[in-house]
Amino acid sequence: MSTRIVELRQGILKKNDQLARALRERFGAAGVLVLNLVSSPGTGKTSFLEITLRELRAQGARTAVLVGDLETDNDARRLARSGVPVKQVNTHGICHLDAEMVGRNLDVWEGLALADLDYLFIENVGNLVCPSSYDLGERIRVAMLSVTEGEDKPLKYPTLFNSADIAVITKIDLAAACEFNRELALGNLEAIRPGIRVFETSAKTGAGMEEWLRFLTSQQAGTMQS
Amino acid sequence: MSTRIVELRQGILKKNDQLARALRERFGAAGVLVLNLVSSPGTGKTSFLEITLRELRAQGARTAVLVGDLETDNDARRLARSGVPVKQVNTHGICHLDAEMVGRNLDVWEGLALADLDYLFIENVGNLVCPSSYDLGERIRVAMLSVTEGEDKPLKYPTLFNSADIAVITKIDLAAACEFNRELALGNLEAIRPGIRVFETSAKTGAGMEEWLRFLTSQQAGTMQS
Repeated sequence: MSTRIVELRQGILKKNDQLARALRERFGAAGVLVLNLVSSPGTGKTSFLEITLRELRAQGARTAVLVGDLETDNDARRLARSGVPVKQVNTHGICHLDAEMVGRNLDVWEGLALADLDYLFIENVGNLVCPSSYDLGERIRVAMLSVTEGEDKPLKYPTLFNSADIAVITKIDLAAACEFNRELALGNLEAIRPGIRVFETSAKTGAGMEEWLRFLTSQQAGTMQS
Repeated sequence: MSTRIVELRQGILKKNDQLARALRERFGAAGVLVLNLVSSPGTGKTSFLEITLRELRAQGARTAVLVGDLETDNDARRLARSGVPVKQVNTHGICHLDAEMVGRNLDVWEGLALADLDYLFIENVGNLVCPSSYDLGERIRVAMLSVTEGEDKPLKYPTLFNSADIAVITKIDLAAACEFNRELALGNLEAIRPGIRVFETSAKTGAGMEEWLRFLTSQQAGTMQS
């Protein structure tokens, strides 16, 4: 890359980091646990979120979702069925969400007060490359990977998995049909991000969701003190 | 986006288009049919290519592959088992291949002469957003989509599917397990790219590969005249 592009990119990322830092302070002050979900297109972020929202709502938790896509409000419509506030962000060609988009959409979200929320989920644009550089002020970055995608994805997209706090493997109901090598996938995650906690889940059977929800609850309980 | 970024981006794309045009002329003069394969990470580009290469080789065709990934040479090693020349391009964080990378890697590829090839496959970085803007000088852009990814991907990533010449649906052996809605997926492809030809394939069962290979052969036969 030319020097001019490198400098411009550094400037963009620096500005994003500043905005993300301010968002993180705002989220912390409001006591809302913010998670940024990143994966390939089609990993199953929306299905995973649908169950998560339904279960959290059943527990009496207050949640909201910002969902990023290049185009369409398909995901927002799906998620809205869970009965929680959902806002679609269309990036119109931009391959990731950034902190400015998150802040701006929160500011114009009528009737939404961060202080009234326990959780805010941000479903990023489906992309295993570009979202890794953009901090959204989240406390937990969740890298997701389906059993259908191949065990080597952490090695091939190291920046994304390396910047994640948590990994979620989805569609484990398809593991046998895909001849998914679980040990290899876990080994690759561990190699790229040593010590990362991994949840193995299925939106179809509900496998792994209880453990994931217990994790969320414990993290939320720690939000005010953090 | 700021005016400065828009201008810079336009400059980058304009330069890429110029390089791609020169590559396209070079490919045409050499009589090599060049295909650019784009999809999400994990759609199965490499498995699909492995079979394609093996079958073309059995027919006596001369092929080579350029394969793009952020990191690792996993795909190059897999594809090399097919016995054809393969070159791995590591982009180290860049989310797509561009014409400059293609040209540079062809120039330094020892022992490879374009005029000796019938086919050159370019397996792009797994990404449904960024590769759509970068012409690599290919004659056929192939957008790939697996049945596990969801039928709405063409609507959510329209720039990629809209810039494709051909669509390939992969992993159709998993269609029932995923409750894949074939009519919906085909309808969405048609809505975004009217008239696009779609191949429905499985690298596991070999379904659809014969039709795909017939298509390749007919396209190759037309390369010199085009």
